[in-house]
Amino acid sequence: MRTAEQYRAKLRSMRKNVYIDGKLVERDDPQLIPGQNVVAETFNFAADPKYADLMTARSHITGKVINRFTHIHQNVDDLLKKQEMTRLLCQYVGGCIQRCMGVDALNALSVVTRDCDLAMGTNYHERFLKYLEYYQENDLVGNCAQTDVKGDRMKRPHEQVDPDLYVRVVEKRADGIIVRGAKAHNTIAPYADEIIVIPTRFMTEKDADWAVAFAVPADAEGVYLICRATAPRPRKELKAPFAEYGSADSLTVFDNVFVPWERVFLCGETKFAGQLALQFANFHRHSYTGCKPAVTDIIMGAAALVAEYNGIEKASHVRDKLAQLVAVAELVYGTGIAAAVKAHQAASGTYVPNFVYTNVARYHAGINIYHEHEILADLAGGLPATLPPEGDFLNPVTRDFLHKYIMRNPAISAENQHRCFRLCSDLLCSAHTGVRQVGGIHGGGSPIMEKIAIMGMYDMEAKKKIAKRLAGIKD
Amino acid sequence: MRTAEQYRAKLRSMRKNVYIDGKLVERDDPQLIPGQNVVAETFNFAADPKYADLMTARSHITGKVINRFTHIHQNVDDLLKKQEMTRLLCQYVGGCIQRCMGVDALNALSVVTRDCDLAMGTNYHERFLKYLEYYQENDLVGNCAQTDVKGDRMKRPHEQVDPDLYVRVVEKRADGIIVRGAKAHNTIAPYADEIIVIPTRFMTEKDADWAVAFAVPADAEGVYLICRATAPRPRKELKAPFAEYGSADSLTVFDNVFVPWERVFLCGETKFAGQLALQFANFHRHSYTGCKPAVTDIIMGAAALVAEYNGIEKASHVRDKLAQLVAVAELVYGTGIAAAVKAHQAASGTYVPNFVYTNVARYHAGINIYHEHEILADLAGGLPATLPPEGDFLNPVTRDFLHKYIMRNPAISAENQHRCFRLCSDLLCSAHTGVRQVGGIHGGGSPIMEKIAIMGMYDMEAKKKIAKRLAGIKD
Amino acid sequence: MRTAEQYRAKLRSMRKNVYIDGKLVERDDPQLIPGQNVVAETFNFAADPKYADLMTARSHITGKVINRFTHIHQNVDDLLKKQEMTRLLCQYVGGCIQRCMGVDALNALSVVTRDCDLAMGTNYHERFLKYLEYYQENDLVGNCAQTDVKGDRMKRPHEQVDPDLYVRVVEKRADGIIVRGAKAHNTIAPYADEIIVIPTRFMTEKDADWAVAFAVPADAEGVYLICRATAPRPRKELKAPFAEYGSADSLTVFDNVFVPWERVFLCGETKFAGQLALQFANFHRHSYTGCKPAVTDIIMGAAALVAEYNGIEKASHVRDKLAQLVAVAELVYGTGIAAAVKAHQAASGTYVPNFVYTNVARYHAGINIYHEHEILADLAGGLPATLPPEGDFLNPVTRDFLHKYIMRNPAISAENQHRCFRLCSDLLCSAHTGVRQVGGIHGGGSPIMEKIAIMGMYDMEAKKKIAKRLAGIKD
Amino acid sequence: MRTAEQYRAKLRSMRKNVYIDGKLVERDDPQLIPGQNVVAETFNFAADPKYADLMTARSHITGKVINRFTHIHQNVDDLLKKQEMTRLLCQYVGGCIQRCMGVDALNALSVVTRDCDLAMGTNYHERFLKYLEYYQENDLVGNCAQTDVKGDRMKRPHEQVDPDLYVRVVEKRADGIIVRGAKAHNTIAPYADEIIVIPTRFMTEKDADWAVAFAVPADAEGVYLICRATAPRPRKELKAPFAEYGSADSLTVFDNVFVPWERVFLCGETKFAGQLALQFANFHRHSYTGCKPAVTDIIMGAAALVAEYNGIEKASHVRDKLAQLVAVAELVYGTGIAAAVKAHQAASGTYVPNFVYTNVARYHAGINIYHEHEILADLAGGLPATLPPEGDFLNPVTRDFLHKYIMRNPAISAENQHRCFRLCSDLLCSAHTGVRQVGGIHGGGSPIMEKIAIMGMYDMEAKKKIAKRLAGIKD
Repeated sequence: MRTAEQYRAKLRSMRKNVYIDGKLVERDDPQLIPGQNVVAETFNFAADPKYADLMTARSHITGKVINRFTHIHQNVDDLLKKQEMTRLLCQYVGGCIQRCMGVDALNALSVVTRDCDLAMGTNYHERFLKYLEYYQENDLVGNCAQTDVKGDRMKRPHEQVDPDLYVRVVEKRADGIIVRGAKAHNTIAPYADEIIVIPTRFMTEKDADWAVAFAVPADAEGVYLICRATAPRPRKELKAPFAEYGSADSLTVFDNVFVPWERVFLCGETKFAGQLALQFANFHRHSYTGCKPAVTDIIMGAAALVAEYNGIEKASHVRDKLAQLVAVAELVYGTGIAAAVKAHQAASGTYVPNFVYTNVARYHAGINIYHEHEILADLAGGLPATLPPEGDFLNPVTRDFLHKYIMRNPAISAENQHRCFRLCSDLLCSAHTGVRQVGGIHGGGSPIMEKIAIMGMYDMEAKKKIAKRLAGIKD
Repeated sequence: MRTAEQYRAKLRSMRKNVYIDGKLVERDDPQLIPGQNVVAETFNFAADPKYADLMTARSHITGKVINRFTHIHQNVDDLLKKQEMTRLLCQYVGGCIQRCMGVDALNALSVVTRDCDLAMGTNYHERFLKYLEYYQENDLVGNCAQTDVKGDRMKRPHEQVDPDLYVRVVEKRADGIIVRGAKAHNTIAPYADEIIVIPTRFMTEKDADWAVAFAVPADAEGVYLICRATAPRPRKELKAPFAEYGSADSLTVFDNVFVPWERVFLCGETKFAGQLALQFANFHRHSYTGCKPAVTDIIMGAAALVAEYNGIEKASHVRDKLAQLVAVAELVYGTGIAAAVKAHQAASGTYVPNFVYTNVARYHAGINIYHEHEILADLAGGLPATLPPEGDFLNPVTRDFLHKYIMRNPAISAENQHRCFRLCSDLLCSAHTGVRQVGGIHGGGSPIMEKIAIMGMYDMEAKKKIAKRLAGIKD
Repeated sequence: MRTAEQYRAKLRSMRKNVYIDGKLVERDDPQLIPGQNVVAETFNFAADPKYADLMTARSHITGKVINRFTHIHQNVDDLLKKQEMTRLLCQYVGGCIQRCMGVDALNALSVVTRDCDLAMGTNYHERFLKYLEYYQENDLVGNCAQTDVKGDRMKRPHEQVDPDLYVRVVEKRADGIIVRGAKAHNTIAPYADEIIVIPTRFMTEKDADWAVAFAVPADAEGVYLICRATAPRPRKELKAPFAEYGSADSLTVFDNVFVPWERVFLCGETKFAGQLALQFANFHRHSYTGCKPAVTDIIMGAAALVAEYNGIEKASHVRDKLAQLVAVAELVYGTGIAAAVKAHQAASGTYVPNFVYTNVARYHAGINIYHEHEILADLAGGLPATLPPEGDFLNPVTRDFLHKYIMRNPAISAENQHRCFRLCSDLLCSAHTGVRQVGGIHGGGSPIMEKIAIMGMYDMEAKKKIAKRLAGIKD
Repeated sequence: MRTAEQYRAKLRSMRKNVYIDGKLVERDDPQLIPGQNVVAETFNFAADPKYADLMTARSHITGKVINRFTHIHQNVDDLLKKQEMTRLLCQYVGGCIQRCMGVDALNALSVVTRDCDLAMGTNYHERFLKYLEYYQENDLVGNCAQTDVKGDRMKRPHEQVDPDLYVRVVEKRADGIIVRGAKAHNTIAPYADEIIVIPTRFMTEKDADWAVAFAVPADAEGVYLICRATAPRPRKELKAPFAEYGSADSLTVFDNVFVPWERVFLCGETKFAGQLALQFANFHRHSYTGCKPAVTDIIMGAAALVAEYNGIEKASHVRDKLAQLVAVAELVYGTGIAAAVKAHQAASGTYVPNFVYTNVARYHAGINIYHEHEILADLAGGLPATLPPEGDFLNPVTRDFLHKYIMRNPAISAENQHRCFRLCSDLLCSAHTGVRQVGGIHGGGSPIMEKIAIMGMYDMEAKKKIAKRLAGIKD
């Protein structure tokens, strides 16, 4: 397993293909550090013996101890631990741990490459296992690039005016394929080792050129990462862990990128494109049952703390709102536990969480994210929006006024009251806020996608039968 | 184990102490039959070999096979099966299975009698086990009478103007105690064998006379059951299972009832009154994670069916609303699974479901019950409210008009379209509707009670610590 | 103007064409009395000099003083008064005043007959005014029969398997037309003088036979009223106004009914079928801005009263919930005022309330009706669902127990506490409850219909222009 | 009336007492310009003859034509016009117009100074009118500083550990008073001419020193403005009006500030402190019925536009969500119209909007603000969160990729599609977003404050009487 420092060193050695605000930058650009700080914790925690059981696993292919973020789930317990690990780490970094998408993509590939081989006589699974061994041995960080830019939302890939609006195979060669197109919303990509590309939707036979899955190094020739980074406002003196973490994502352009066959995991088998999209969504939504409760934990912790500092912690409406937050966190987490407990084993041996439970849990998280911010805003009052910038707390003239007038509870120092409101301000009123809100809705699939998924899989006929019997209707 | 017929025969032999609408009636009064039809299924299913694993268990005291409705949970699997059994039976009878409250009370007593003995040197647990053996041997049906009438809601038992507003011990004798007071909302009591009385709240030392738990036969001397029965409108010719099931409850008056010591399970140990109230609530809320999803299943099945008959099943807003119902059902059920999986073992050996998960699940069910009816009303249209009575479908003149004009889909008979809307009308516009709605809020504890329970048990300080660390606040 | 007794006498003289539960009954059948009690108040209040200004108006055709329920709105003040009158009367009868649909149909006809004449050279308006004079002179009660049974919801009238699934003209004769079909959900019809039939939707040219509007006496030859009546449970001794009022509706069958030309107001002008449907919806939704706040007033009053009796009136969560009810009532009523203030005058001279405000107000009422019941259920506790029937309060044995144990506040008599909970039980747990809930959603058009209406009329392009300018987009 | 340029020139001449991020800055600091651009429009529109009727009024004291933002409402029409003007201007500047708080404070003072004089024999009203004349003549911009920093929320002013936690009179002199304390959340203050200080709450007799109202020039000796400015991200080349507007607020410190008597409008009359707080809240909440619908208009316009560009404008769930936005906007605006129509005239002659309607309207706006952003996020998809910074659209390499891959609808230029998403990104994912959200909850009083206000004023007893009569309860 790697250390955080080895991870950072590797990033520094990579080919320069990251753009930020129009500039081509190195991977240690200051804007990318907050995101790397997040990923670094996945190495730090794995190296801590206290978390060995949670953070590491034994590879089912090599038998070696590996970071759980590179592991294929072999049983229910693996799924429960992934969920628990995710919540713990997200609590620690104050939000999305980001590295889950790589392991979720690997698990989906483990299932679908095998199913495809069984149905079509291909041999993707063997290829995949070799790639997996390389990934585990090197303890890599993977981005999963799924969402195509999609052009006209009402048209399929082959119907688009510009065929590149979904990533596609433009040439097949003896040694590999050439791909072109772009994937959007690729969190972690600017500081990942690998980019794992999978389809974004079900495809028809006419969409064969678009039914493609593969992996490339993030700095492969022809790959352009056009990025946006966000983090809470940087602190001058009043350092706080929350302000050290952030994220960045990219629009990832594949401009005639060559991929050797050993890194190609689907190529034209349209029937399995949708399966792969669905399986990734399923594993990723299960990850959400770990991360999203952590996001609620942070909002809840901040809300309880600011209510305490405001002296209103015992007020009935405050306790009512905190209980609402508990309910959101624990319904999502509890249903995630059920998804693990009711998992089934795929042909590949991989444990696949229960589809209905992952989807209703992710759905519930998605429809509550704005309301959770609303609760925190409600309990924190207006100050998060009007808190003077840090500089005013450093200038002696204004600092004295601010320390005098911020006081609510004489038992707590002005600095700590200030720190509490600055955290609330970062949570509610920074550029990072909106990214968390929009990500809370759309990341891993919007509520409307989960509803569609649920209605596609749920046994509604069984429920109609219950009603028919009670009504005395005989078919 | 008993048969349904043995259960009914025993009821017919009981002392007449049931009042309905001012009349003293036998237990086979027509108004009480729909409720008994429900309870009868708990015997029928247990007798069916197909459901042996789900419906029966091995007694931990006698080793005999018993109805699961009399069993003390010995492991996680017992809790999972109770939940699954509850959902299955409630789907079958179209609503509340009612018999759960007895087994929930027994499980709570199994825990608290032991804990009390350990702390206070009493010997309630031994007494309780003897009573349990009797209960299991005779495959009894128990009501749990918990909610006192409570008088002034702002006052404790000993502060009330009339001391009987909470059930209390008025005399202790060598052979037993005399109790007086009344318990409200006692579903199943008019056709139960036993009434198990437990406290309704935490108590102070001054409330010792009110800290009492015991069991009496439902027809014991001095017990008056003043009842209200509800069921869908009875059918003349268009019989349907849904119309055969119903429920009844009682205000149960204890007018100087004698209880022998062997049936007394708490008497003055105020500290354990609250514990017992809480434990029953916990087991009962776990039952709700089984029954409430079934109620949603029925609403969902009826909604999907009427949407199909109305020809709007594929409409996006319809699928959206059905998916909302799925989410409610499966979040509650999934979190109930988590409550079982994360159970702990009490000193008595009983498995106690996780308190946070039972409470958030019951809470979520409670806050959705009205909205679920709203969805069904939305999809069914106005006809459930204006559907002419059954007689109009029997009179030849009006029947022909009605069969002509009810037609939506020529592929479905007018009778079946009628049956579907009659079920919807029973679900939405009968006296039973309101009882289901109010019961859905208050049965097993209202959402506000779950919020209070959650806030009393949840580790909110741990969440504040997460926020403090992120804010850079050192205690 | 008529008296209530004259109204009832006329009903008794009508041809017997009302069916209830398969029986052909007179119009003074006990099941129809609660509905007539409601309508009677519209005569009683008009006869009361205290309400003269509110309840009466001066006819714009005869100059005589008439009941406002027969008046065509001549200015903003007329609209404001109709709204205020509606709220007052609905508060008094505990729900829907029912007579509004007649006046709403008349106002819609006043507008559309004139507009049609102007566009098509017909002379419907003159006919209509003669009919109106007859209606005003005789102070009639009108039902508006709008909703067709509609068969397959995805098909237009002329596409249905059975052409009668929308009411249609089967023959045109020199003296009039013959119509066939059925209209559903016709509240008040069993005790109305007149039935005014209008189209239910927009129509294409192929639907000309279905584009028909007319009026017939409710007992005209060929008209069958197949009815469902609802009211709170009748009281034996504990009389209360709430239990005296109710409603009934019919499926109204037109079995080759002859309508003379002077009572035909649209016949084949398809373009104006949709206009008429829309105009009636608009006037009727404006009526909802009066009646729906009254329904909330009653729920709110009951909620505040039961909270007072339960001793929890000052609790913060109680005040919070009552304030929610105030907000629903006053947002709907306030927006109804805006609809009147922003009315426009049609070619006929009639004042037409603002379409956007009537629709958003009705929409808001519709999406809150279930939640309002939920609030009352929450504050009232479980007793409305388990309150023993009245007979138990009359039998001396059970009455004494009930009076002892219902006591919450010693300052209030047991009888009054009982009365309060019986009102809550009638509101929450009677067959009438569901009818009010479903009616609250669908009566006058469901929320989804208002959304469609809003999106059809609202100037969304103007809002896009605001966004475009701010974004710097030039068209 | 002044021009925008005169307004800006005056600002440049003021004493330097504004701090931003620790620096003492001039009032033309770049961070303060976006806020001034907003206020400038209030002068530009008033100077435009097209808006003369809406934007100007005739002073009731001088008879001269004045900017409506300095006018005391003399009739219902004035209130309707203020509401309409507010919506128009807020649509134009993309959010809060800010200048309303000054006129709202003046109207509140006009009422309360007169009422106080009548009750206490003071002569505040005459003083106030002189100040008003000065304000109107010079067409001033006023901040209203109401919210004290408040210290311990559970304590009254005189109970605080530090008496300065509410602004108070520390000395009364022959020529005026000395005040000390701080007011929070003072939007517009850094670029206002005047600061008008009023109490924030009801006060007891012991709080006499804190019952003070007065006006000072914003740069008066002893006044410190510690500021936070927000605006959408500045644009390099892709200029757009939305990016030019913003706001700033201050924590305003009064460090022993001298106020001459002619500018003191309340000083010790505790009974009128609460009245003044309430009256300002009422006028300001009425302003919200104009501005908040405009905020919804902007969100709605952006949502409809992005839905059009995404090609999903006709999808039923999209139309459903847009209709929800219409309903929010028009319920708030419609109820604001009712507040004007149902206004009453105070002793001073000022028209005071109806308290219940202003409060339910502001409440409804407040509880929907987060949900409105959620709808926009839902319809816009993930791109607002991951849209690369403007620089990437300028660098030729990345620009070409971005313009190729942002295409959805070939009929619309890539630049315009980009502009649309940048507006959405500014609306959803900038630091300004959170400020708008928190301001939408707390500005002008949080929903909980409106509920408290409603419950304090609403005639709930009248509603109980309705319920009592229906229940047959006689008092």
